[in-house]
Formats: sequence, structure tokens, C-alpha cells
Amino acid sequence: MYLSLDVESAARLAGAALRHARQLGLRPMACAVLDAAGHPLAVLRDEHASFLRPQIATGKARGCLGMGFGGRELARRAQAMPAFFDAINSLSGGEVIPVAGGVLLRDAEGGLLGAIGVSGDTSDNDERCALLAIAELGLHGDCGDAQA
Amino acid sequence: MYLSLDVESAARLAGAALRHARQLGLRPMACAVLDAAGHPLAVLRDEHASFLRPQIATGKARGCLGMGFGGRELARRAQAMPAFFDAINSLSGGEVIPVAGGVLLRDAEGGLLGAIGVSGDTSDNDERCALLAIAELGLHGDCGDAQA
Amino acid sequence: MYLSLDVESAARLAGAALRHARQLGLRPMACAVLDAAGHPLAVLRDEHASFLRPQIATGKARGCLGMGFGGRELARRAQAMPAFFDAINSLSGGEVIPVAGGVLLRDAEGGLLGAIGVSGDTSDNDERCALLAIAELGLHGDCGDAQA
Amino acid sequence: MYLSLDVESAARLAGAALRHARQLGLRPMACAVLDAAGHPLAVLRDEHASFLRPQIATGKARGCLGMGFGGRELARRAQAMPAFFDAINSLSGGEVIPVAGGVLLRDAEGGLLGAIGVSGDTSDNDERCALLAIAELGLHGDCGDAQA
Repeated sequence: MYLSLDVESAARLAGAALRHARQLGLRPMACAVLDAAGHPLAVLRDEHASFLRPQIATGKARGCLGMGFGGRELARRAQAMPAFFDAINSLSGGEVIPVAGGVLLRDAEGGLLGAIGVSGDTSDNDERCALLAIAELGLHGDCGDAQA
Repeated sequence: MYLSLDVESAARLAGAALRHARQLGLRPMACAVLDAAGHPLAVLRDEHASFLRPQIATGKARGCLGMGFGGRELARRAQAMPAFFDAINSLSGGEVIPVAGGVLLRDAEGGLLGAIGVSGDTSDNDERCALLAIAELGLHGDCGDAQA
Repeated sequence: MYLSLDVESAARLAGAALRHARQLGLRPMACAVLDAAGHPLAVLRDEHASFLRPQIATGKARGCLGMGFGGRELARRAQAMPAFFDAINSLSGGEVIPVAGGVLLRDAEGGLLGAIGVSGDTSDNDERCALLAIAELGLHGDCGDAQA
Repeated sequence: MYLSLDVESAARLAGAALRHARQLGLRPMACAVLDAAGHPLAVLRDEHASFLRPQIATGKARGCLGMGFGGRELARRAQAMPAFFDAINSLSGGEVIPVAGGVLLRDAEGGLLGAIGVSGDTSDNDERCALLAIAELGLHGDCGDAQA
């Protein structure tokens, strides 16, 4: 038996990420929340965010799920193995965006619920908004920190 | 000076469309709300909706904006000019889905605010949920009815 | 709580479909078994089957899951709404192959387990092999028959 | 006259690679076995492996066949000639994944039978599972070792 993410929780997560970005005075954001299989449940784009942001946010989240790691681990691997990540991006149509701001969503037992991706400001700030939204809903985020 | 759709209104529209589908006992839905430029503000997918639904909902809305007509008018034209619509779909990567369920969003003066697309049940039921959501927010929908 | 398909069952399904095709003297087949989210668990291609067969088998199964109907219902809809299916194929990169031979896999309670797609002979014979394999494993197949 | 790989041997190879990964306590894997022409005979994905793994495994095997070298030799060349491999990936749609874990399959006389690709854990561990599966079936693997 395991929990799955529903659209209400996904919409609340995405809304919270955008709200935190505004409250922190960051650049306008887009946020994508995907289920564990990589399919979208909620994608929101601040009306002032540039138009590629929803795709980038989706690619951050989908890359985490497609490879099984948080965005920081993807970033480390892309730096160590650029040819591998170039190839993955060609085959997946750019679905793997290997930077911070993509975070795996887990329940209290570590079960995979899906992923959130945020794009709009620096990668660090994108991730910060993702984590604030995750904490607000009482979920656990896996960014791919080296010690995580 | 003119009104534009913001992400909060877009998210409320999409949420309302999914809620109406549930209340009416229809099949699970996805709903996409795009700004007047065709870029997504809010995309929601019921967790029980099949996974192509968000893309289809987006394509219904985007086709309306890309061509300047509601979904019913696109459907009539696709039936009358199949080769034209085949070509459009090849050049746009399938972004023009010419069926009911794509509705242009207008303000009280007829100004274009964006579009909503709904997918999950029959085209007629998809459109019905779009119109219920539009009415709930006090906006005006342009389905491309022959007399509209 | 719900059942999910594992790779062993998927491989047995695919292997059984190919074996039934041989025993019936049909043309060489490919068979794809996908999980409920549309991701492959097992794809097998008879060494004498032509090389597009695995992609076609995958597209039959993936179309059923992406749209939420068995292949026969997809075929009826594609005939009634050709422009809609042309558009869906453009946006999905040809993932929706609307013919018999794609079958949703369900458990005894009707829960969705995934889908199987078979390609190699006529659509009717493809579906026949899918159904023989499904019966052999004690699962339930949903072909999209009008009365199903 | 020469030997060719059949689907039964391919399915046994792929199944053996996944089993070795489990027995060694490695991360969940996908494995692709292609014939000498680069077309799939068997693709298996552990139900717990992330969803890009089948494509990556296929790309590792297909890259070996497309270029005529094992994955380790491809990795060396990609490091020495990054622009060349970027171009190859653009033209092939990401089919050449130049890392360890892609292994050419040869018969006792060195004749080319096909290739196997494994993805899920580190490249070294992926290759290890490929080689264990190859040994189990009494075939010969060509990883592209410098001295091979």
C-alpha cells in the first residue's frame, strides 16, 4: 500500500512555490508538480514569468524522476559526464534539466510521491521555493544533496 | 489599457473545470488555461485522468488562440478542409486540436484574455465543464458557435 | 491498496503473446507490455518480425493508456474524428496507434494494471494473441469492445 | 553462414542482467538486447527502475552497434572529441550513449551477434551485470577495453 499525490495537493504545492517567490521578492516563477510516473498534475506560471519557464520547471522535475535523483545530484553527474547528459537530452527531447530546482517528493517512509520543479530565478532560489512549498504541505524533499 | 489573466484566476478556472466534471459524474479531466499569447498559466490534471489529457487540453486551447476561433469553429473548418488542418498540425507539432472543449476567454467588452481547454470525457461534456468554470468566474466564453 | 505489474509478469505476457502467434502460424510478432503510467516493462520482438513492430506494439499499448480506452474504441473514435486523431498523433509523436491489438490490462476488480500491444499480423490476429496471453496469466483484458 | 541472436536468447540475457543486479543489491535496472542491425529483440525494465532507463539502456547498446565499438571505447572517444559526439547525438536523436554498460555481443569466432545495454546503477556496475549475463549464456562480450 502506498500514498499517491492528488491534484489538489499538487496545485497547493505549485501555488505555494509561486507565493514564496513573491514574498521573497524573487523573479516570477513557474512550478510543475508531476506524479511518480512523470506525468503532470499541476503546472502554474506566474503571469510575469517568461514563457519557457513552465517547460523548464517540468524538465527539472521530469529529469529527477526519469533518472531517480534530485536536481543537485543530476547537476554533479552532468558536470562529471557531459557527453552522457548530452546524449540523454537528445533522446528525451530535453526532458532532463540537470540543475538545482528539481526535487523528488517523498512521504514520511521515503516512498516516492512525484517531483516538483521550479524555474524563474537562480537555481538556488528556485530550489528554496520548492523546499518551502514542500515543508508547508508536510512532505519531504530530496534535492540530491551529497549527504542526503 | 486592457485586462490580462493572472495565474490565480487561471488556477481557479482550471480547478473549477475539474470540480464540475466530478460533480457531474464525468470521466476524470485535465484543464489548461493559457494567456492571450498562448503560453500556459495553469494546467491541472485529475490524478485519475489518462496521461495524454494535459497535452490534449493544452492543444485545444492553443489551437483556438493560434487560429483565432473557438473549438467548434475549428472543428467545422477541419471537416471542410482536412488537408489544411493536417498541414497545420505538422507545422505546429500537433498544437491545433480542432474539437469542442477549447474556448476563447473574453472580458465584458469582448477583449481576448486567453483560452481554456478541457479534455477527458466527450467533447461536448469537456466544453460544458469549461463553460461552467468560465461562468463561475464571471468571464465570457467563445466556443465558436455558428451564431456567436 | 492496488496491485501493480512487475517485470516478471510483463515478460511472461510478452513471451506468451509471441508463442501463441507461432503456434497459430501467424506472422512474426512484437509485443510491448507497459505499466499503468505508460512506461515499458517488457518489449519482445520475434527475430523474424520487421523492425518497426516493437514501436507499433508500444504505440498501440501507449495509446490505450494515454487515452483511457482499448484499441477497438480508439479505432472507432479515429474513424469518427480523423482530425482529432491526426492532431493527437502530431503532438504525441505518433504514440497513439488507434487499432485493435492494444488492450488495457485489468485486475479482477477492474483496477488498471497497464496495457499490452501486439503487432505483426492483422489487427484482429494481433489482438487474439494479446488476449490469449492475458488469459494465460489470469488477467483481464479490455479491448474497447462496444459492449465491454 | 552465421549465427544470429533469437528472441529467446535475448530475453534470457535481459532477464539475467536484471537478476544479477538484484542479487548484487544494485539499483533497479533496465536492459536492452539488440540484434546486429540495431533493432530491439528484448527490453526489460525492473518495475522499480526510473522511466528513462529503458531508453538509456537501448541507447548504450545502439551506440555500440552504430559506431562499431564497445561502450568504453565510445566513452574515450567522446571525451577526446566532444563536438563530434554532440553532432552524432543530434543527428541520431540521442541514440549514441557513450559510456560503459553498452557491450557488443560476439560468438566464439568473433562474429557480431548484437549488443546489450544496461542502465540503472553506476556505469561500471551496469557493465558488470551485462558481462555476468553474457557469461551465463556462454557468449562473448566486447566492452571496448583498451587492450581488447
